[in-house]
Amino acid sequence: MSTPAIIPPPVLVLVRPQLGENIGKAARAMLNFGLVEMRLVSPRDGWPNPSAGPAASGADVVLEEAQVFETVSEAVADCAHVYATTVRKRGVTKPVVTPEGAARAIHAGPGRSAILFGPERSGLETDDIALARTIITVPINPEFGSLNLAQAVILIAYEWSKAERLASPPHVDLPPPALQEELDGMIAQLDAMLAETDFFFPPERTPVTRRTLRTLLTKPGWSAQEVRTVRGVLSALAGKQPRGR
Amino acid sequence: MSTPAIIPPPVLVLVRPQLGENIGKAARAMLNFGLVEMRLVSPRDGWPNPSAGPAASGADVVLEEAQVFETVSEAVADCAHVYATTVRKRGVTKPVVTPEGAARAIHAGPGRSAILFGPERSGLETDDIALARTIITVPINPEFGSLNLAQAVILIAYEWSKAERLASPPHVDLPPPALQEELDGMIAQLDAMLAETDFFFPPERTPVTRRTLRTLLTKPGWSAQEVRTVRGVLSALAGKQPRGR
Repeated sequence: MSTPAIIPPPVLVLVRPQLGENIGKAARAMLNFGLVEMRLVSPRDGWPNPSAGPAASGADVVLEEAQVFETVSEAVADCAHVYATTVRKRGVTKPVVTPEGAARAIHAGPGRSAILFGPERSGLETDDIALARTIITVPINPEFGSLNLAQAVILIAYEWSKAERLASPPHVDLPPPALQEELDGMIAQLDAMLAETDFFFPPERTPVTRRTLRTLLTKPGWSAQEVRTVRGVLSALAGKQPRGR
Repeated sequence: MSTPAIIPPPVLVLVRPQLGENIGKAARAMLNFGLVEMRLVSPRDGWPNPSAGPAASGADVVLEEAQVFETVSEAVADCAHVYATTVRKRGVTKPVVTPEGAARAIHAGPGRSAILFGPERSGLETDDIALARTIITVPINPEFGSLNLAQAVILIAYEWSKAERLASPPHVDLPPPALQEELDGMIAQLDAMLAETDFFFPPERTPVTRRTLRTLLTKPGWSAQEVRTVRGVLSALAGKQPRGR
């Protein structure tokens, strides 16, 4: 059971972007380094946005083919790896890599990767980051960290392009990685089971506990088969447990 | 005769920049990766420029300390290495490096480096590039090369910052490198000598011939002592040659 040898370029996901101009600049930055697949999650001013085209300086193909989603979860459902970009590490217990490290990992595959970029003003929220398996942090001047959206995009796209020239042929005999939607299904299954127990008590701790679990369950590396196995385990456990005990 | 072990960070030289806003964005990009020394050559709208500050997003220190020069030659006179950034290689017979290669070379020293960036619309002119010893070309999508000034600056600054973390301690026993003004003096001396001969004939070929010579004479690596030696050679030759023959 082998996976196709071709590793698609990553999808860049702009989460709740504010200004059309910045979406256009991000498209230009992407195309400069050969990336064409942009996804937008709930752009503030709707889509299409007339300010995006002029700022793209000719990268119209990226804007024309951009797909729009309502939630981050839907935007990354078909991806095998999800990276979240943050300038500073927050209290998140996920692996943190540099743009270079992420680029190498993306080229090593297997599967398609998504890279999340937050809104201009505030960056990604904790719930967005919780969806990712890995954090990308650009090592920046600790006394002046002020990367705008297009600058963050260009550094990631640049490193991806650099790594492409160095990439070794992908392994063709790895099992296919779990897609994000497969992981989400597994997590939802466990969550539903736990909701029937006292696991999430007290209620005010529930969001944190959910994130902790998600982090634990989405550490990089599970294959689709492994996710199916875990789901089998959960189903088996659920079957053993009396409903509505 | 040893050179100081400290290799200063590079100077970024904006040659005939057009918009104050872009100067501000370049300052922001520099400071994000710890570079603070900006020089401006004949900024189109004069200096200071009220549009620069807001675009710098807090990188005011870079703008406040920016120095202004009338010519590229003056702006780089105290530098030991001059790099010119171009998106595409032109018909120039100088070494071409990537941003990463330049960053490694700058950290290896010795001496201070200057990196030239051209005007937004047109990029560096051939005469600007002629002053440089090495070309930096960002490997970009051949079908869509559209880097703006701040993007070019941030990629260079980012690679410099990355290389800083990898840099080995500099060699302390190398002879001090020739400064750009020392090279310029040597070239001017030879040029004056040649002008008295038929070397620059026919006149319409003179600019090309001058550039060819400059390229030949500024290949990386001459020390200050070597330049003095060459000047001694030239002076000796000039002395032997009958004036105004």
